[in-house]
Amino acid sequence: MKAEGRHFETIWLKPGNPAVVQVIDQRFLPFELVIEDLVSVEDVYTAIRDMHIRGAPLIGAAAAFGIYLALLQGKGKDSPGEWLRQKAQWLKSARPTAVNLFSCIDRVVRAVSAEGSLGVMQERALEEALKIVGEERESCRKIGEYGLPLIEEVSRRKRGEPVNILTHCNAGWLACIDFGTATAPVYRAHEKGIPVHVWVDETRPRNQGSRLTAWELHQNGVSYTLIADNTGGHLMQHGRVDMVLVGSDRTTIRGDVANKIGTYLKALAAFDNAVPFYVALPSSSIDWSVEDGVSDIIIEERGGDELLYSDVYTAGEWKRYPIAMAESRVLNAGFDVTPARLVTALITERGLCKAEKNSIFELFPEKKPKRL
Amino acid sequence: MKAEGRHFETIWLKPGNPAVVQVIDQRFLPFELVIEDLVSVEDVYTAIRDMHIRGAPLIGAAAAFGIYLALLQGKGKDSPGEWLRQKAQWLKSARPTAVNLFSCIDRVVRAVSAEGSLGVMQERALEEALKIVGEERESCRKIGEYGLPLIEEVSRRKRGEPVNILTHCNAGWLACIDFGTATAPVYRAHEKGIPVHVWVDETRPRNQGSRLTAWELHQNGVSYTLIADNTGGHLMQHGRVDMVLVGSDRTTIRGDVANKIGTYLKALAAFDNAVPFYVALPSSSIDWSVEDGVSDIIIEERGGDELLYSDVYTAGEWKRYPIAMAESRVLNAGFDVTPARLVTALITERGLCKAEKNSIFELFPEKKPKRL
Repeated sequence: MKAEGRHFETIWLKPGNPAVVQVIDQRFLPFELVIEDLVSVEDVYTAIRDMHIRGAPLIGAAAAFGIYLALLQGKGKDSPGEWLRQKAQWLKSARPTAVNLFSCIDRVVRAVSAEGSLGVMQERALEEALKIVGEERESCRKIGEYGLPLIEEVSRRKRGEPVNILTHCNAGWLACIDFGTATAPVYRAHEKGIPVHVWVDETRPRNQGSRLTAWELHQNGVSYTLIADNTGGHLMQHGRVDMVLVGSDRTTIRGDVANKIGTYLKALAAFDNAVPFYVALPSSSIDWSVEDGVSDIIIEERGGDELLYSDVYTAGEWKRYPIAMAESRVLNAGFDVTPARLVTALITERGLCKAEKNSIFELFPEKKPKRL
Repeated sequence: MKAEGRHFETIWLKPGNPAVVQVIDQRFLPFELVIEDLVSVEDVYTAIRDMHIRGAPLIGAAAAFGIYLALLQGKGKDSPGEWLRQKAQWLKSARPTAVNLFSCIDRVVRAVSAEGSLGVMQERALEEALKIVGEERESCRKIGEYGLPLIEEVSRRKRGEPVNILTHCNAGWLACIDFGTATAPVYRAHEKGIPVHVWVDETRPRNQGSRLTAWELHQNGVSYTLIADNTGGHLMQHGRVDMVLVGSDRTTIRGDVANKIGTYLKALAAFDNAVPFYVALPSSSIDWSVEDGVSDIIIEERGGDELLYSDVYTAGEWKRYPIAMAESRVLNAGFDVTPARLVTALITERGLCKAEKNSIFELFPEKKPKRL
């Protein structure tokens, strides 16, 4: 998508130097567009853990490149294979909730595990990482195509009045490679000239909505209004939301959706007001091994400073200001799980399905366990 | 309650100078305990509008003193009565949602409307304002008594494990005269040695939870944990909330509750997880003229800057830092309405009742319209 008038994706090999992976360091947005060079698996670990980059699809792609960079560092190691396995295990600990982190690492490690010199392993890792990037890009593009009719239908019903879409956190192109998950249908509709308007949840405590989603919609000319996370229910009560459209960090085989903390509250409000609640996700963020999301998905707890301080980037430096009592004990859970019963439909790269096992396996029959 | 080790209420006549009303300027909390002198009805208007003070009971009491101060300013006016009516009308426009503002102003104006010199009018206004203060203090004390058994019962069931109470915004003593509404049962339980723990919603965008509720609980030795507004549903899903206890800015005769934006979302989550949802309120915040809260209560919309900037008080001055894209359009609704069907019970100064008309009028029979 566009940023400062140019076309960008979120991750790429540095032109002229394929030993360097480049990403947008999202901590500086919306204040500055900073490109970061990642030259080692340690850099990738830090970028994921400290949220220079975030979003399930992007975390997965970055981790894939992390394995590639680890192999570039593997020269001279006694047992590059063993060393790689250790690094891979460590990289998986960068963040706990997005399943893409684990699956993409496993996938690249599997791809390089065949016999071969270190050089061959490096080549294969890069190939696989680029393949993941390509697949994620294509998945989001298709999510946009499959989600578009949902917006078109509301637009027709409203006779061209703007379709009001509420989103939480950032499930935009910044969370993916391009297009985004939840934003893909929005961008597609906007491109087709359908009037859309997005209610952007601020998304405390890290403000991914006000900092990232607002920025990317603005850069791409989509109309939006920023709201506090507390506001969605009130808007729905007054008929000001036509649909909720969010992404997912991990979806279970029965359609429970782990996403940014607060998503569950919006799903409850949507249900209470008969507003459709759609979750857009590439199948890469489905965890085929988990059924009950509330009991079985590990929810990340982050540091309390995110609620106690405001980190402000000004005049080229970060400053930290207290916004609460520094002595306060804090619980800072990063995600919550929206039970499948509150989800109207999943929008995947293969089309729409209900948030329930049979419907999901109908779209992805190859994932069906032999004795279900 | 206690602040910096001393006993405080939120509003009082300046010792030695009854022409000055003093309040805690809550904008500086938790960083500094600043006492503000209010010497005119204009000062009171500004203090209410710009939220030096807030909370339905305190807004009402302050407005009552505002009428008194207006009368002190009335000397030499041709028609003090007419002038007072104009000032009263104007003072009502300071904020739109809390019903106490309107009812307390009307009450003091009625009390002074009888024949009498300006001096007598001033005396009567002061008397009435002090009476309101006394009633509000006593109402909160009684809410504490009537709410206590609800906490005791959970404590018994949990065999003395801490009772986890989630609250939103500040319905503490800072919102009232003393004790608070939602906090009154909590303080009472704490005083009695019952282990309690409060989940304090940050309460964006003005952070009344992290700035005021956390501060007052801390000052009074009550255990608490600060959470983002997005977190309550997740905690309830995991059995970590025993009850929700909030205040109310305006309650209708059928039990719909207008309270800080986001309260409705917590009520939905409580309902979905079978967690009791209690609203503590003095009957002064019941609007006896309104039935349907969602359609008939005017919801205040505040400026967008509250979401775009972080105002930080440091080294004796306020500084403003951007935390979002300054270009963003913002909708900043201050309140939402929780439908009565989601409210387990109201806790009033006359005891508990269901959030429905008959039950409310059983407690307040004198308010029952003649042909209901």
